[in-house]
Amino acid sequence: MKEYVLELCESVKNAQKGLANLNTDKKNDAIKKIAKALIENSDYILEENKKDIKASKDVIPKTMIDRLSLNIERISGIADSLMQVVALPDPVGTGKVFVRPNGLKITKISVPIGVIGMIYEARPNVTVDAAALCLKSGNGAVLRGGKEAVNTNRALIKVMKEAIALSDVSPDVIALIDDTTREGTNALMEMRGYVDVIIPRGGKGLIKAVVENSKVPVIETGAGNCHIYIDEFADIDKAVKVAINAKLSRPSVCNAVETMLVHESIAKEFLPAFAEKARPSVLEIRGCDHTLKILPEAIKATEKDYETEFDDYILAVKVVKNLDEAIEHIRKYTTGHSEAIMTENYANAIKFVNEIDAAAVYVNASTRFTDGGEFGFGAEIGISTQKLHTRGPMGLAELTTVKYIVEGNGQIR
Amino acid sequence: MKEYVLELCESVKNAQKGLANLNTDKKNDAIKKIAKALIENSDYILEENKKDIKASKDVIPKTMIDRLSLNIERISGIADSLMQVVALPDPVGTGKVFVRPNGLKITKISVPIGVIGMIYEARPNVTVDAAALCLKSGNGAVLRGGKEAVNTNRALIKVMKEAIALSDVSPDVIALIDDTTREGTNALMEMRGYVDVIIPRGGKGLIKAVVENSKVPVIETGAGNCHIYIDEFADIDKAVKVAINAKLSRPSVCNAVETMLVHESIAKEFLPAFAEKARPSVLEIRGCDHTLKILPEAIKATEKDYETEFDDYILAVKVVKNLDEAIEHIRKYTTGHSEAIMTENYANAIKFVNEIDAAAVYVNASTRFTDGGEFGFGAEIGISTQKLHTRGPMGLAELTTVKYIVEGNGQIR
Repeated sequence: MKEYVLELCESVKNAQKGLANLNTDKKNDAIKKIAKALIENSDYILEENKKDIKASKDVIPKTMIDRLSLNIERISGIADSLMQVVALPDPVGTGKVFVRPNGLKITKISVPIGVIGMIYEARPNVTVDAAALCLKSGNGAVLRGGKEAVNTNRALIKVMKEAIALSDVSPDVIALIDDTTREGTNALMEMRGYVDVIIPRGGKGLIKAVVENSKVPVIETGAGNCHIYIDEFADIDKAVKVAINAKLSRPSVCNAVETMLVHESIAKEFLPAFAEKARPSVLEIRGCDHTLKILPEAIKATEKDYETEFDDYILAVKVVKNLDEAIEHIRKYTTGHSEAIMTENYANAIKFVNEIDAAAVYVNASTRFTDGGEFGFGAEIGISTQKLHTRGPMGLAELTTVKYIVEGNGQIR
Repeated sequence: MKEYVLELCESVKNAQKGLANLNTDKKNDAIKKIAKALIENSDYILEENKKDIKASKDVIPKTMIDRLSLNIERISGIADSLMQVVALPDPVGTGKVFVRPNGLKITKISVPIGVIGMIYEARPNVTVDAAALCLKSGNGAVLRGGKEAVNTNRALIKVMKEAIALSDVSPDVIALIDDTTREGTNALMEMRGYVDVIIPRGGKGLIKAVVENSKVPVIETGAGNCHIYIDEFADIDKAVKVAINAKLSRPSVCNAVETMLVHESIAKEFLPAFAEKARPSVLEIRGCDHTLKILPEAIKATEKDYETEFDDYILAVKVVKNLDEAIEHIRKYTTGHSEAIMTENYANAIKFVNEIDAAAVYVNASTRFTDGGEFGFGAEIGISTQKLHTRGPMGLAELTTVKYIVEGNGQIR
């Protein structure tokens, strides 16, 4: 297995050499050809996808089956998203230039990172999105999707490679590790020197395993134990509206809120108003003792609940004495994704913003906005929750690094 | 050991909270107080340093003893370099702001990374430099210097902490892991969640061990198997001057050249001219067969020589058929640090610059310029040879990450 993965990564590395300096038109042409090919070959792709769905039935949860499933609308949605990548500006070749006193001209310019490894779950759309984002940013892509989607991914890679072959790009710039064991992932994590960065996308377990075992640098994404703090100076109506949105508009995603902290002086008024608005969604509230006194329907929260990213219709609630206790709680449990305060008090807003250490810190708005599209960056490859390289939504620019070009006329030191 | 390191890292993490939002004047004040204290306590520091030198005599090479040794001039040089850090602009709190169509105001602002772990050799100046750069950029620092310098480092940390205690900064923002075994380093590499990044500085073995074993993200620095390629269209005089400088001005450093590639059509003229200028330095040349024919004093190079970062008065030489072969050779052996071409041909220069993948690519100038000071960035904490986070000289700006502050008025998605 290790040899197979090494060979794959080597061929992507070699092919990327030609892609690195290709102009935007040619890269866009390849992506457009992929979009066209996906539509033209949708019957084949759907057939292969059916195999995966059949094999996964009664094996994985329904929500996962849903993410795995393709249909003609979804394929056409994927093709549309490719055209959005085409429309984005090329992140390669931008930078600045300065001249040193000795006459050396130094250009700091963005260049592709090189080869990106993606480890993700059984979501066929990620296979195509990741390939297109890597292509546009001049990077090679080694993809390792969830084993439940292996037939779909094989079909998608085949169709994409055939489409790329019609352009000026080498089809070898993308590759799929199509084994269905852990060995493929393990081998990929050993490919230092061939793969420049691995981006894991998926559940906590997957990300933790990659972070702890990879010898290739990793960008940790999507860990989202997000909080919303309802300050004593919150506008109750606004706070209810935003908290409901942050928790319930899409509980399964990483930017949804998992724990709500409420100032004790506003809890008696705020919590029943929130619970009433939440009722149609059958939200399970797990609260501290103080919460239980106000909301009889709540059940007792454990320490573990405050640590948990439920990704579900469950909300942990804690009543706090003051802003400091709220900040302390968040500092203890945050995964550094998105944290919000609802307040009309200027000093409290500033204190929260300064003292909370997260990719995105919100004042009076829903955490659900932490997203490349919502931030105006276009398609994203993930939300970085680490501090190295990039933090927050990762778009095309974050798939580049820099090169210093130093031009002289015989300068010596 | 693990508990001791955990406690240390936790206390740095807690102290950094207060440092993160401190204004520049207050951070500078702490650094100035350190500079003053180093001078005032130089007797004590030199006494402790003598213990280290005595214990290391006949145990480590002379060059290492030299790097370990302090005297009053060196201490005052270290104090001067601190004043240079004071003069640099604060990297924290710069960024940009934009407003989304829904009215959300998004500020992307630079913030400290958090806690930086430094693993380095027995070089006391690094202890002070790293502490000051971390302080100025609002970061906590956990330092683990080479065991041969442990008495000196303990003294330096004591003096620095006492000086910081006189300022508005908590002295707990810096800490030294002062064990003399490997266990301290190993424990530091497990501190994910407490330490945000580890920067190893030192030899290949040290860096490899950290890269392969750390669960904390790592920035790889200083691996420098650098090349200079003498193109067929090189100006011979210029090429000799630059090659001599790149190899011989300071062979022990990472931006010195290790292998020289020479176009076959210019080799007969260039190599003897180069060898003559090199002669006073007793340079050992290890060449390919073609080189041996031109330079009788050269010895035969092995494959291993082309892989080796000599950091010494040794140079590998290879005569190549053309630019493509030179690029191919560099792509195979480069550590991605600094690579140079000497040519007066425009197309060849552009091709080299585009196809060589390194932090710094030079045309007609010495690789020795890859340095924070020479690039005009001020003091540096290392030269990154990886592509993630930062590449090339790492100054204060590279010790920050970003935070998105999202301000709204009840926006929901």
